[in-house]
Amino acid sequence: MRILVVNVNTTDSMTKTIGEQAMAAAAPGTEIVALTPAFGADSVEGNYESHLAAIAVMETVRAYPEPYDAVIQAGYGEHGREGLQEILDVPVVDITEAAAATAQFLGRSYSVVTTLDRAVPLIEDRLLLAGLSARCASVRASGMAVLDLERDPDAAVEAIVDEAVRAVQQDRAEVICLGCGGMAGLTERVVERTGVPVVDGVAAAVTIAESLVRLGLKTSKVRTFAPPRPKQFRAWPMAV
Amino acid sequence: MRILVVNVNTTDSMTKTIGEQAMAAAAPGTEIVALTPAFGADSVEGNYESHLAAIAVMETVRAYPEPYDAVIQAGYGEHGREGLQEILDVPVVDITEAAAATAQFLGRSYSVVTTLDRAVPLIEDRLLLAGLSARCASVRASGMAVLDLERDPDAAVEAIVDEAVRAVQQDRAEVICLGCGGMAGLTERVVERTGVPVVDGVAAAVTIAESLVRLGLKTSKVRTFAPPRPKQFRAWPMAV
Amino acid sequence: MRILVVNVNTTDSMTKTIGEQAMAAAAPGTEIVALTPAFGADSVEGNYESHLAAIAVMETVRAYPEPYDAVIQAGYGEHGREGLQEILDVPVVDITEAAAATAQFLGRSYSVVTTLDRAVPLIEDRLLLAGLSARCASVRASGMAVLDLERDPDAAVEAIVDEAVRAVQQDRAEVICLGCGGMAGLTERVVERTGVPVVDGVAAAVTIAESLVRLGLKTSKVRTFAPPRPKQFRAWPMAV
Amino acid sequence: MRILVVNVNTTDSMTKTIGEQAMAAAAPGTEIVALTPAFGADSVEGNYESHLAAIAVMETVRAYPEPYDAVIQAGYGEHGREGLQEILDVPVVDITEAAAATAQFLGRSYSVVTTLDRAVPLIEDRLLLAGLSARCASVRASGMAVLDLERDPDAAVEAIVDEAVRAVQQDRAEVICLGCGGMAGLTERVVERTGVPVVDGVAAAVTIAESLVRLGLKTSKVRTFAPPRPKQFRAWPMAV
Amino acid sequence: MRILVVNVNTTDSMTKTIGEQAMAAAAPGTEIVALTPAFGADSVEGNYESHLAAIAVMETVRAYPEPYDAVIQAGYGEHGREGLQEILDVPVVDITEAAAATAQFLGRSYSVVTTLDRAVPLIEDRLLLAGLSARCASVRASGMAVLDLERDPDAAVEAIVDEAVRAVQQDRAEVICLGCGGMAGLTERVVERTGVPVVDGVAAAVTIAESLVRLGLKTSKVRTFAPPRPKQFRAWPMAV
Amino acid sequence: MRILVVNVNTTDSMTKTIGEQAMAAAAPGTEIVALTPAFGADSVEGNYESHLAAIAVMETVRAYPEPYDAVIQAGYGEHGREGLQEILDVPVVDITEAAAATAQFLGRSYSVVTTLDRAVPLIEDRLLLAGLSARCASVRASGMAVLDLERDPDAAVEAIVDEAVRAVQQDRAEVICLGCGGMAGLTERVVERTGVPVVDGVAAAVTIAESLVRLGLKTSKVRTFAPPRPKQFRAWPMAV
Repeated sequence: MRILVVNVNTTDSMTKTIGEQAMAAAAPGTEIVALTPAFGADSVEGNYESHLAAIAVMETVRAYPEPYDAVIQAGYGEHGREGLQEILDVPVVDITEAAAATAQFLGRSYSVVTTLDRAVPLIEDRLLLAGLSARCASVRASGMAVLDLERDPDAAVEAIVDEAVRAVQQDRAEVICLGCGGMAGLTERVVERTGVPVVDGVAAAVTIAESLVRLGLKTSKVRTFAPPRPKQFRAWPMAV
Repeated sequence: MRILVVNVNTTDSMTKTIGEQAMAAAAPGTEIVALTPAFGADSVEGNYESHLAAIAVMETVRAYPEPYDAVIQAGYGEHGREGLQEILDVPVVDITEAAAATAQFLGRSYSVVTTLDRAVPLIEDRLLLAGLSARCASVRASGMAVLDLERDPDAAVEAIVDEAVRAVQQDRAEVICLGCGGMAGLTERVVERTGVPVVDGVAAAVTIAESLVRLGLKTSKVRTFAPPRPKQFRAWPMAV
Repeated sequence: MRILVVNVNTTDSMTKTIGEQAMAAAAPGTEIVALTPAFGADSVEGNYESHLAAIAVMETVRAYPEPYDAVIQAGYGEHGREGLQEILDVPVVDITEAAAATAQFLGRSYSVVTTLDRAVPLIEDRLLLAGLSARCASVRASGMAVLDLERDPDAAVEAIVDEAVRAVQQDRAEVICLGCGGMAGLTERVVERTGVPVVDGVAAAVTIAESLVRLGLKTSKVRTFAPPRPKQFRAWPMAV
Repeated sequence: MRILVVNVNTTDSMTKTIGEQAMAAAAPGTEIVALTPAFGADSVEGNYESHLAAIAVMETVRAYPEPYDAVIQAGYGEHGREGLQEILDVPVVDITEAAAATAQFLGRSYSVVTTLDRAVPLIEDRLLLAGLSARCASVRASGMAVLDLERDPDAAVEAIVDEAVRAVQQDRAEVICLGCGGMAGLTERVVERTGVPVVDGVAAAVTIAESLVRLGLKTSKVRTFAPPRPKQFRAWPMAV
Repeated sequence: MRILVVNVNTTDSMTKTIGEQAMAAAAPGTEIVALTPAFGADSVEGNYESHLAAIAVMETVRAYPEPYDAVIQAGYGEHGREGLQEILDVPVVDITEAAAATAQFLGRSYSVVTTLDRAVPLIEDRLLLAGLSARCASVRASGMAVLDLERDPDAAVEAIVDEAVRAVQQDRAEVICLGCGGMAGLTERVVERTGVPVVDGVAAAVTIAESLVRLGLKTSKVRTFAPPRPKQFRAWPMAV
Repeated sequence: MRILVVNVNTTDSMTKTIGEQAMAAAAPGTEIVALTPAFGADSVEGNYESHLAAIAVMETVRAYPEPYDAVIQAGYGEHGREGLQEILDVPVVDITEAAAATAQFLGRSYSVVTTLDRAVPLIEDRLLLAGLSARCASVRASGMAVLDLERDPDAAVEAIVDEAVRAVQQDRAEVICLGCGGMAGLTERVVERTGVPVVDGVAAAVTIAESLVRLGLKTSKVRTFAPPRPKQFRAWPMAV
C-alpha cells in the first residue's frame, strides 16, 4: 500500500519531518511518500496561504504518477480537503479531522492545542464542517509561531504544555490533539504533565488511511465529491 | 464610492451580466468595477474549480490598483471569502451570505434554489460557517447546469421555479434566494408563482457593501482576519 | 423615501436622539420620521414595559398617516417586531437584529454590550429567534441603568468600554454591537480601546431599511406575517 | 390553594370552557379562578392580537385581588409569559410549555397539533425559548380556524385527528399535544386513532402549578424575572 | 395512588431517606413504597455500578407485586430509565429529569450541583438525551464523595453551597437542582446563600408522577418504549 | 495483538459470525477472540435486553484472562460502552460509533440502515452521545426482525436494500452504515443498488482498535472513565 502524505507548505525540512512521523505510524508494508507542494508559502498561518496551499496540494497530487492508495493532507486547519476528495477516487484524510475522530474514541471530550491564535478559527471551522465539534472542548493557542518553535524550542514546548494543562483543567478536555508540528519530546511532555492521551494528527491519519484502504472503502462519488465536470481553463496550465 | 465585484469564473460575458446586475442595484454615485479572475475555469460547479477561484479572486483583487471601498465575491457557495477579508482592509461581502442575511429580514425562513445538486453542500457549508443556517429552510437544486440554462432557458426557468414552489410549500420557506446566474425574467417568474419575496445575491451584496462603507465600517483585524504574516513563496509569482 | 423610526419608550428627548442618529446614517433623499409611542414607560428595562411597548409601537405606527416605506423599531432586545411585520406590508427592521446582521459581515463573531444585566436575556432571546446567535460570542452588561448614564456619563462610558474589552479578550469577539443609547463619544472610545469595529443598531437599521426599499423587497406574507384576521375587540379602541 | 387561569381572548364562553377543563384536572382543595382579559380580541390567531393579549393578561392579573398561589396563561403559543413571571412572585405556567414538558415524560418525542398554519411559528418560538424543542418532532396545523371548529365540529375534529396521525406516522411523534381549544371528544378520538398519549395543555398546567405551590417553589428573582424597576408611565392608567 | 420509589444503590438507610423525602412531597392519599434494589453496589458513583443498577432496578420493580401507579428511579444521572419505560405501562420518572423539568418553570436557566466530578458527564448525558440541556447553565461538582458527606457534613454542605453560588454568579443559573442525597439543611443553606429556588429531584419526581397518574397518562408504547419482544434468556433467572 | 470482540446476545452462532467478520478485517498478526456474554438474551432488540447485555458484556470481559489489547462491543445501538471504558485501561470501540466515524471520512453524510423500527432511537441516542450525529442523514429501519432475516433472507435483504436506496435518494446520504448482522451478500447488494460506500461496523471497529493499539493510545482516565471506586456489593457475585 502506498500513501501520499502531502505537506501544505513548501519547507522541505517540514515535509521530511512529516514523512518520518507518518512512517513511524505506518504498518509494515505501507509505503509513505511525503510530498512538498509545487508552489506556495514556506509556512501556512492564515487564510491566504491556506487557500493557496489548497490548490497547490491538489495540483501536486494530480501531478504525481499513479498508483497510490490514499492521500493525507498534512496541515492543521487548512482549506482544501473537499477538493482532493472530488478529484480523487482513493480515500483522502485530513490530519485535523483524523486527530479529532481518533480522540473521540479515547475520552468524552478533546481539546486541540495549536500555535498562533489566528489558527484557532481555521481549526474550529474544519471541525464544524467535518461534524466533529460536538465533543470538542476547546481549541487553544500557545501564541507561538512556527519560527518561535525553532528559535526557542524549550519556551515553545512549555507554552504549549501550559495550554494543554489549561484545556484539561478548565475546559474539561480528556484528550489532547496536538495541532502543531513535530517538536521533539512534545507529546511525551504533554502526556506527563496532563495525564491524558495525546493524539498526533499525522500518525492518526496514517492509520485511518490504511484502514480505509484495507477495508476497500473509497470516497463516495454520488454528490458532494462527484468528479469535476469538464471545464475550459484560462491561464492555468495545471488544470486537467 | 467604488466597489469591485469579482466574478469567480473566467467567462467574460458572465462578468458583464454580474456587473450590470450590480449597477442596477447600486446607489447614485456608486461606481461598480466588474472583474474577471486572471485565471481559472469558465464555470465553477465544484470544489476543484472553487478552490482555484478562491486564490484567483484574491490575486485578481490584489493586482487591481487602489483605491476602492469594498469588494464583492460574486459566486454562489464558493470558497475564499475568508482570504479576501484577511488580505484587505475594506469590507468584503459574499453574495451567498448577502442574500441570506437580507432574506432573514423579510420572512421567518428562507430557501436557496440553485442549479446542480452538487452545489447544495457547498452552499450549505458557507451558510453554516457564516452563522446563517438557523433559519435556512432548505437548499434545493433544479438539476440544471449553467450550460443548460443557456441551451434551453425556458425549461431551466421552469425547473427552478418548480423548486422554489416546493421550497415554499414543502419546506415552509417564506423567502427565496436565487443561487444561480441572472436569467431574464427569472425573479419575476418566481415571485409570480410563489408569492414570496425573491432575493438576488448580487443586488443584496451591493447594498450591504454600500452600507458598510457609508457607516465607515471595515473588517475586524484582531484575530481571524489579521493581515497575513510575512512569508517566503516558492513558484508563486503573484504573492505579496 | 420615508422611514419611520419608532422609539420604544415615551421619553421625547430619547426619540430626538434616536432620530438624529438615524438621520446621520441616512442617505441623501431619505426622510427620517422619529416617533414616540403614544403610551408606555419612560424607559424600557424589563419584560413588563417591553410588552407594553410592543403594542404601543404597533398602535403608534398604525395611527401614523401613510405613505412611508419602512419602519425601524428602535429598542434593544424588545418584544414586538413580529407584530409590526404582520400589520404592515413595508419592511420592518429591529435594531438588535440589524446590528448583529451587520456585525457578521465584519468579523467572525460579535458581542453585544448593554446596560443592565436584566437586559441580557431579552437580547439573547431576540438573537436566538432571529437566527443570529450562532456567531454571537456573548451579551454583556455594564451594570449601568439608563439613569446612571445621564447622572455620571464618564463612569458609565468607562464601565461599558471595560465590558467591550472583556468581550474581545475573553469571549473572542471581533466586533462589538452597542446595545445602549447614544452616549457622546461612546463609539469612539470603544473603537479606541478595543481596536475592533463597533456597530450602532440605529445606524445599521437605517441602511438596511433603505436597502430593502431600494431593492423593492417587502415582508413575506405567506404564513408567519400574513395580515391579521378580522376580529372583534373589547375595550381596545385602537384596534383596526 | 387558588390558581388563576387566564384566557388570552375576550370570549367569555371560552374562558368558561378553560375554567372547566382546569377544574376537571385540579386536585381536591384547589380553587380555580378563570379570568377573561379586560381588553383584547375575541380570538387570538396572530402576533398583533397576541401582543395585545400579553399586556391585557398582565393587567388583568394585576387588577385581581390577592391572595392567589399560581397563575396559568391559557393560550397556545402566545407572547407574554416572561412579563407575568416578572411582575409576580407566584409561579407562572404557560400551557404550551406545560404540555410539552409533560409530554416529554411519556415518550421520546412529541408533536403539537394546532389549528391554523400561522400559529405554527408562534408555537415553535415558544418551545425554542423555553428549551423544549429538542424532542419536538413537529408542530402541525389542521388548517381549521377557531370559527371553523364551532361551525363544523365534525370536520374540524377529523382534520385535527388526521394531522395527529401524520405526526405519529411521518414525524415519529410518540405523544401528541393538542394546541387548540377543548372540542368535545377530541382527545378521545386522537387517542383512539393514533394509539399514543394525548396531553391537554390546560390540564397539564394545572397539575404543574399545583406541584410548584405544594413544593413551596416560586419564580427566581435574581435576573431575568426580577421585579420591574420603577417607571413613569404616559397615557397608560393601568401601570403600577 | 401507589408510587414505587426505587433507590439505585443497596444502602437501606438511603432508601429510607429517599422514601421520607418522597412522602414529604406526596399528596394526601398517595402511598409511597421505597424499594432497595435486590442486588448492586452500596453507592453508585460511576458507569459500572450505574449499569448494574439499571438492570437491578428493573428486576426489582418487576418482582414487586402489582398494582402500583407509577415508578420513580431515584438516582441522579443514572442509566436505565428507558428500560423501565419499556417493561412497564405506568409512568416512569427519573429524578434528574424531574428536577430539570421543574426548574425550567422557575427561571430562565438552571444548574445542577452534584458530588463527584465523575458524576458530571453522566448527568449531562441524561439531560442531553432527555432534551433538557438547552437551558442547563452548568453541571458542577463539589468534589465531595458520598462518604465525605457522612464523615464531615459541615464541610460537605459548605463545598456544595459554594458551587451553587458559583453557578448563580458565574454560569448565570437562576435555579439550582441538587444532584446529591438529602443532607440536613442543605436546601435551606443553598436558598439562603444564593437567593434562588432550589429543586430537589425526589420531591419534584413525586409531584410529576402524581400528576401523570391523575391525568390518566401512561408511557407511549408505539415505538421506543414498546414492550420487549419475547426472548430466550441464558443464565438469567430473573428474566420475564 | 489480541482483540476481544464481544457479542451482546447469547446466540453462539452469531458470536461465530461476528468473529469471522472481525477476522476478515484484521491485520496479519491480530488475534481475534470472539466472546459470548455469560448471560442475557438470545437477541437484543430493546432497552431491557440491552441494559442486561451492558452488564453481561462487562462481566464477561472482566472474567476473561489478560492480556488483551483492545475490546470491541459488537452490538448496534446498545448500552454499556461507557462502563467498559471505565473498568478497562485498553481501548474500547463500539461498532455503532466505529461505523459512523469511518463513514464520515468517505462522504459528507451517512445513514444507518437497521432492522426494527424500535432500534432507531437506541442508535440515534448512541450517535448523539458520541458526538457523531451532526453528519448523520438518517437512521432507517427495514422492519425486519433478526428472525425474519433467517427465515426469509431474500426478502430481508431486499427490504434493507430498499431503505438504503431511500436514504441515498431522499435523505441525501452519501455513505451507508449497515446496522444489522452479517447477511450473506448484503453489503454487495447495497453497494450495487446505491452506488455508495457501505461500512460494516465490526470491520470498522477492528481497524480502529488496531490503530489505537499501534499508536499506543489508551482510554483517558482523568474524569469520565476513571476506574470505579471501591464498593460493597450485595447479591452480585461477579463484582470486582
